[in-house]
Amino acid sequence: MTAMSAPRSDRSESDARRFAPLPEHFPMWRGDVLHDGQLAYETWGRLNRARDNAVLLFTGLSPTAHAAASAQDPQEGWWQRMIGPGLALDTDRQFIICVNSLGSCFGSTGAASINPATGHPYRLAFPDLSIEDIARAGHELVRTLGILRLDTVMGPSLGGMVVLAYAALFPGAARRLVSISGTAAASPFTIALRSIQREAITSDPAWRNGEYSPEAPPVTGLRLARKLGTVTYRSAAEWAQRFDRQPIRPDLSGSTPFGAQFAVEGYLEVQAARWVNAFDANCYLYLSRAMDRFDLAAHGEPHAVLRRADLAHALVVGVESDMLFPIGEQQSLARAFEASGTPTRFAPLPCIEGHDAFLVDTEHFGRVIGGFLAG
Amino acid sequence: MTAMSAPRSDRSESDARRFAPLPEHFPMWRGDVLHDGQLAYETWGRLNRARDNAVLLFTGLSPTAHAAASAQDPQEGWWQRMIGPGLALDTDRQFIICVNSLGSCFGSTGAASINPATGHPYRLAFPDLSIEDIARAGHELVRTLGILRLDTVMGPSLGGMVVLAYAALFPGAARRLVSISGTAAASPFTIALRSIQREAITSDPAWRNGEYSPEAPPVTGLRLARKLGTVTYRSAAEWAQRFDRQPIRPDLSGSTPFGAQFAVEGYLEVQAARWVNAFDANCYLYLSRAMDRFDLAAHGEPHAVLRRADLAHALVVGVESDMLFPIGEQQSLARAFEASGTPTRFAPLPCIEGHDAFLVDTEHFGRVIGGFLAG
Repeated sequence: MTAMSAPRSDRSESDARRFAPLPEHFPMWRGDVLHDGQLAYETWGRLNRARDNAVLLFTGLSPTAHAAASAQDPQEGWWQRMIGPGLALDTDRQFIICVNSLGSCFGSTGAASINPATGHPYRLAFPDLSIEDIARAGHELVRTLGILRLDTVMGPSLGGMVVLAYAALFPGAARRLVSISGTAAASPFTIALRSIQREAITSDPAWRNGEYSPEAPPVTGLRLARKLGTVTYRSAAEWAQRFDRQPIRPDLSGSTPFGAQFAVEGYLEVQAARWVNAFDANCYLYLSRAMDRFDLAAHGEPHAVLRRADLAHALVVGVESDMLFPIGEQQSLARAFEASGTPTRFAPLPCIEGHDAFLVDTEHFGRVIGGFLAG
Repeated sequence: MTAMSAPRSDRSESDARRFAPLPEHFPMWRGDVLHDGQLAYETWGRLNRARDNAVLLFTGLSPTAHAAASAQDPQEGWWQRMIGPGLALDTDRQFIICVNSLGSCFGSTGAASINPATGHPYRLAFPDLSIEDIARAGHELVRTLGILRLDTVMGPSLGGMVVLAYAALFPGAARRLVSISGTAAASPFTIALRSIQREAITSDPAWRNGEYSPEAPPVTGLRLARKLGTVTYRSAAEWAQRFDRQPIRPDLSGSTPFGAQFAVEGYLEVQAARWVNAFDANCYLYLSRAMDRFDLAAHGEPHAVLRRADLAHALVVGVESDMLFPIGEQQSLARAFEASGTPTRFAPLPCIEGHDAFLVDTEHFGRVIGGFLAG
């Protein structure tokens, strides 16, 4: 293993991240070259001698590589109840690698990182980012770890796009693929929503054309973007059950004109406040735009692309209440896998939590994904 | 008829609006009193001698009273293909009255109007506005016109809330009721969406706590609010058909970083540009908040409230692809009417255009509403 020990561990006292250098010159999918980039990742379980039990996990737009607790970092991870001994991603059997996406801001190189050519943050000088770049950076990490073929490549949401790019770019590099609430191409509805989120940030005077200081980010725009994200990540039915028309908790109610009055508004506020202080605005813009632009068809007819990928098995999981990556898109993707000749399981789940169900409904997701990985 | 001729006709050269004064002291639903208010309205067809052929039409959040062309104003109205001789709202048989909602900015008194007590615009000194106030202002107009009982009270979207408030507040005042893509209470999902739209405006520095000048409105916030509105007014399926992943028309593509790339973004931009120059931001905030707060249950058990309304017939129309006022809420409303003992027709329409279908799918809406009114 040539993985580096952590050169930066500024985010929390306990830190399980490792850092792998990308190739010195990393050509980006839409042109330009990234120099001296790196990828942050965490692992759970052990790579076996045959080096054939690795699961590479890409994340959604905003999580870190900290998918689960470990000895080095006992804090709960974003997929805590899915990764561990005897769990769906069974660390007694598999070696799990979770990467912070290229272009993000939790240890992997992105717009907030220092540009070695200038000594200042890239900001908008960061090269144009594509889903394909995130896939390829992950693949470089896999090679760095000495793994010739992954047991499984897996990802939810944005990560569900990344695994398709992975399959398209690196035929034979994974034995199995799991797409979780992903899609083969961004729909105009989701493009519209993300474009509004980006505009909320870029029209915030504090954004300053990307030149904000880390101490003065475009908080107003970030807050709006996150609130809108939160609405689309859940479902109307879940919120009707959970919040109904309850009034807001008095301690969350603002005194501003037209301020929050209902419990659901308090929830949005709490979600936004957490995120605004954690995520870099420029990184968000790059990742969000990369999602809009992704289209598996750019690599050829989807079924032909997926045939070339040479997968032994594919699992496509989606949620019936997902408004962002709707179940119809999951079904189309499963059909493309079937048309490619890949033995495919399509699992439409009846969860009520919408797009975010993979983060909360461990029972449904654990059973389907655990069953697939064990099978 | 005691209706006044137009004291203000500053919006277009041709103007069919009339203006009716509200009672000098108009007590608002949540307290406070509006002084010397007025309502703008337009009419089509003739009130018969028995004065029993009037249809009172409330609008959605943003339209004017100009629902259709007339001799005085030949411009197309927002429901042009629904109102006229032989059309669903048949002006050969019925007298159609469309009101600009109290609190709006197209001739009816609202936050942008001059406060007679100060000689300056009300802005945030406008009294707290409720759906009930919009209903009651409409009822005052009906009395001003010498109509004792409406043939039908009708409204889409926000107007669909208003007609329920009308029925609750004025038992016996209408023989029939038509709710179009309305709801008996705002859901937490729609509250969340509207609360983000309001925050986009109130967090725009140009809003200036409501004290912007008419020449310098909070354009950035208004634009974001309208774009988000537009997304929720249509449907993902319609946009997949209409825009797919087409690139934006070159003349609409911006040169700003992270600017629009796809056709759907150009559509949002065109919609927003139109609206930003037409609608007053404070009026929008008042109307939007009024929708959040509406709950028919505040008047009592819905079926009991609707029984007291003493309607001869009710029609509840909704659209299966509506994400904002979903078909389940239409069905619940229809059930409440049935439970009240009102002969009720429930018409779930298969239109693909989402919430806005009533504005565009004249074929479906014309047949259902025309059939009901003729029946």
